[in-house]
Amino acid sequence: MRSHDTIAAIATAPGLAALSLVRVSGPDAIPIASACFSGKMLQEVESHTAHVGLWEYPNASKIDRVVATVFRSPRTPTGEDLVEVTCHGGDYVAALVLESLIDQGARLASPGEFTQRAFLSGKIDLTQAEAVAELIHSTSTQAHQVSLSAYEGHYSKELEKLRTAILELCALAELEIDFTDEDVEFADRGQIKTLIDNTLIKIEDLLQTVKLGMVVREGIRVVIAGPPNAGKSTLLNSLSGRDRAIVSPMPGTTRDTLEVDCELGGLRFRFIDTAGLRQTSDTIEQEGVQRAQSVMEKADIVVYVYDLLAGLTKEDTTVLNSLHDKSVIIVGNKVDLISEPVTIHGLQLSAKNGLEALEPLIHLLLEQAKQDFGTADAAKTVTNARHQSHLKNAYQALQSAKQALKSNQPPDIFSIDLHGAARELGLITGAITNETILGAIFSRFCIGK
Amino acid sequence: MRSHDTIAAIATAPGLAALSLVRVSGPDAIPIASACFSGKMLQEVESHTAHVGLWEYPNASKIDRVVATVFRSPRTPTGEDLVEVTCHGGDYVAALVLESLIDQGARLASPGEFTQRAFLSGKIDLTQAEAVAELIHSTSTQAHQVSLSAYEGHYSKELEKLRTAILELCALAELEIDFTDEDVEFADRGQIKTLIDNTLIKIEDLLQTVKLGMVVREGIRVVIAGPPNAGKSTLLNSLSGRDRAIVSPMPGTTRDTLEVDCELGGLRFRFIDTAGLRQTSDTIEQEGVQRAQSVMEKADIVVYVYDLLAGLTKEDTTVLNSLHDKSVIIVGNKVDLISEPVTIHGLQLSAKNGLEALEPLIHLLLEQAKQDFGTADAAKTVTNARHQSHLKNAYQALQSAKQALKSNQPPDIFSIDLHGAARELGLITGAITNETILGAIFSRFCIGK
Repeated sequence: MRSHDTIAAIATAPGLAALSLVRVSGPDAIPIASACFSGKMLQEVESHTAHVGLWEYPNASKIDRVVATVFRSPRTPTGEDLVEVTCHGGDYVAALVLESLIDQGARLASPGEFTQRAFLSGKIDLTQAEAVAELIHSTSTQAHQVSLSAYEGHYSKELEKLRTAILELCALAELEIDFTDEDVEFADRGQIKTLIDNTLIKIEDLLQTVKLGMVVREGIRVVIAGPPNAGKSTLLNSLSGRDRAIVSPMPGTTRDTLEVDCELGGLRFRFIDTAGLRQTSDTIEQEGVQRAQSVMEKADIVVYVYDLLAGLTKEDTTVLNSLHDKSVIIVGNKVDLISEPVTIHGLQLSAKNGLEALEPLIHLLLEQAKQDFGTADAAKTVTNARHQSHLKNAYQALQSAKQALKSNQPPDIFSIDLHGAARELGLITGAITNETILGAIFSRFCIGK
Repeated sequence: MRSHDTIAAIATAPGLAALSLVRVSGPDAIPIASACFSGKMLQEVESHTAHVGLWEYPNASKIDRVVATVFRSPRTPTGEDLVEVTCHGGDYVAALVLESLIDQGARLASPGEFTQRAFLSGKIDLTQAEAVAELIHSTSTQAHQVSLSAYEGHYSKELEKLRTAILELCALAELEIDFTDEDVEFADRGQIKTLIDNTLIKIEDLLQTVKLGMVVREGIRVVIAGPPNAGKSTLLNSLSGRDRAIVSPMPGTTRDTLEVDCELGGLRFRFIDTAGLRQTSDTIEQEGVQRAQSVMEKADIVVYVYDLLAGLTKEDTTVLNSLHDKSVIIVGNKVDLISEPVTIHGLQLSAKNGLEALEPLIHLLLEQAKQDFGTADAAKTVTNARHQSHLKNAYQALQSAKQALKSNQPPDIFSIDLHGAARELGLITGAITNETILGAIFSRFCIGK
């Protein structure tokens, strides 16, 4: 599985910045880097040492004063000889450093190829490789913790435990196959059934985290709906002011939809402001409700904002009834304008009064999210559709084995199912793999990783 | 001039990428980094060594698996203890690494503060510090070579040579002052005059590179003008296809202006496509010409494109006459449609035939640029308005000294001028400096540099 060529890429993001980092990995990484480096002879330096020197096209123009850090195989991120060149930022200098490496015989790395080499040299398994991509894309505490845990190998350890359990079942079945002529039921079939059931439960538990895994990755879609002038946009503005660091207002596809991302309670929420749900004319009320439904269809949670001064109207009720299968939080806004107590539908707050006024809403949102999606156990959360598909296949194969066992089939029948289940789990971690899977996984990475 | 606090910043560009780099510099850089680093004790490792380990909030959540490289004062880019943390890319992880460093007592660095510390600790002078910013912004071979040369200190060596020469003149003048009671003209005043003249010539040479320095930095503005449908946009498109690597089409301020950057012959050219110069109605011809002039006013070179089928019209001639003080290249387009020879005004080419067809135009552009701006000697090109201003002041002071010498003034008179000239050159390199200058220079840097 060893690579025989040397790859290079810019590993940092493009754009103006203080520094950029260019990596070169492979059997010739050190001599190639050394040819461009005027300073210490990189071939002679120790592993994990950093050296300041001039980077240049060999015997031609100078490129930059850089720090070249040498990592010798096998104790390197890729498992191969690796040199990291820290040069000045901006795209021009980094492009020249990369070009000089390619001039000297390195090949431009494909997306994900550094991580792929780490996998091929056995430094990490497939779930860890996939976790690198998720780590880079993470935008909330939970996404970060789940992907870091997977990158550290905790998630694949869980899967390997399951796979080992199934492989032990396979061994039991095979033992029985070996003695099949003697018509002996070798293993206690009741015991095998119990073991299969336990494994099924564990896979079921994992599959139940898929919904959570999805919102951990993608964020929870909260649609802010309600009649015009109820204070929806004010609510969005107050929410977007809440987050200390990572808020990004994104212009939506239409002028009327604005999205704001913020992290609340470790989860990413995407708040989507909608245009007022309904025209004033009754004749098009039906269409208004349909529009509301289409916008809210993809919502994980709907926050329905109405004006406390106007109260909940019949139209509001119609919309709310149409949302009976959704998680809905009803918010009566403009409580600051109310002098006398009113019949309360849902929360009462004043959206324009900023963060503190929204705490009850945020609390409810977090409660709702917990109720709908559960709480992440970093090592046992499935965030990957590929994993989900293999887990489902493993689950079905185990079910099928259980059925065969129930109907007293011979062991070679349910042995096939058990092996199938083990294979599916092996495909997740990469214990079993093929070119197609690898291609599909790594091609989605960014270059330099 | 030593700093007493420790600064930290993300040094790489924001955005999704394989890796990010966070730096921490100052007296506590190593203990602060060490507190967040689970691996080797960074306080005990040797300088210039890289260590793989887990980065975390001390006794709290994990952040990432990183490489921490330790640089011990004084052999570091900032002259101080410095740790560079290479973590996974994307903005989230890098922000957490930075936050953990700040948690442990580092301060968020101001823009340019790392470079400022390099200056304050005497690692580089002011022109080298300024060259760092230019290096990062460079987008052509010449911009890159000029800024690298300055960063390497070649430019400031030239300035120091001049300053030393002037300081020697000062010494001669002072010697004469010391003996002034004895009414002795100590130094040969003719010799002093020659020395001043030599220095004036050298400063003049430097000041003459200012125009070149400007286009090296900013690119050469080439306005493509001409009547409608002459093929101006086609020419722009063909030009933008020419550059191998660094082409960026930028939408202009108006819908009718499109800019394309490309590097030709080591220089950056900004081609600006204009709308057809003139309306069909004769009544507003005058206004058409005015518009043409206002667009072309800021051009370094005007490429005037006309349709060979239509020939050069009277209107074209009017416009061309109004450009008499500009560098103009006249291009007759659509030569492929001409079957019979025509009287040729300027180049003949076919813009739609792509790169090869444009070689004669590119050749002319490079010739024109060379003629108008000269050729860059990397170590002797002034790219900085601040330097230009100090050089002008130095020049005037020397002129004034020369005048005083001519009119036989006593040495204390021209000594003041000579000292003034030396001071101006010292302000460029930072041999003489003050807070205001430093603030103005470093605040324009990006954070992390």
